Amino acid sequence: MIDREAYRADNCSVARTLEVVGERWTLLVLREAFYGVRRFDDFQRHLGVARNVLAARLAVLVAAGVLAREPYQEAGRRQRQEYRLTAAGRDLLPTVVALMQWGDRHLADPSGPPVELHHRDCGAVVRASLVCQSGHVDLDARQTETQVGPGALAA
Amino acid sequence: MIDREAYRADNCSVARTLEVVGERWTLLVLREAFYGVRRFDDFQRHLGVARNVLAARLAVLVAAGVLAREPYQEAGRRQRQEYRLTAAGRDLLPTVVALMQWGDRHLADPSGPPVELHHRDCGAVVRASLVCQSGHVDLDARQTETQVGPGALAA
Repeated sequence: MIDREAYRADNCSVARTLEVVGERWTLLVLREAFYGVRRFDDFQRHLGVARNVLAARLAVLVAAGVLAREPYQEAGRRQRQEYRLTAAGRDLLPTVVALMQWGDRHLADPSGPPVELHHRDCGAVVRASLVCQSGHVDLDARQTETQVGPGALAA
Repeated sequence: MIDREAYRADNCSVARTLEVVGERWTLLVLREAFYGVRRFDDFQRHLGVARNVLAARLAVLVAAGVLAREPYQEAGRRQRQEYRLTAAGRDLLPTVVALMQWGDRHLADPSGPPVELHHRDCGAVVRASLVCQSGHVDLDARQTETQVGPGALAA
């Protein structure tokens, strides 16, 4: 275990990620992006979020390289921008699935979860799991321990 | 794939989880709890958060059953409360690790991640992964698809 008093927290990767996605609307925008939503008006309608708030959240995600703006044009209309997940954005799926899974387990209606995630190839249900390099899966908090990494900063 | 227009989002498990943990300080409080921190003054000192904000975030986590207040008493001092992760709270570790992992990959200093998570039994490094019931691991966003679950609500 790390001696919590011996190291600084200001380079913490959790905190840095939360500077990008640590806000409720931002994570809900990402949820919609994983559903395939790309256009401002569709995000706005699904989320019921104020347009200025949505624009601010999208700008944060674009600046962080999570979404990329790409032009599109419908016949007879002016060119507009849509928002697509980048590779770094798609890399946030475990975070979104982990949040969904906790809600499914602890907060779902008696009828069960509203959405299931499946493996496209084999059809089996997908879950977020802690796995180790030796191949052990579904580790719980008590089976893991923190250790000092190469980027740790002494207090 | 789910037809995003055909179902309501108001019972979404992501959104419900974010009602509990969808705030930056709340997730940082949880990070500290996973480090083993239990006492108000230790949370406050590690996080540098205002005491009234910390008290509010701890109250949300206790109300949601993520943390439990337990009394403790040091010799010669009055009894106080500490905050311990419940089973439901420990179940949030995949969320915290998924956030950490994204920061490690996309935002870490050149020297590398400050913290590593290891499997206590075998010592191997632990990661958050999307795995399916058939045993396929490390699925990415393009290998998964959403399907309607039993609790879905038609629009």
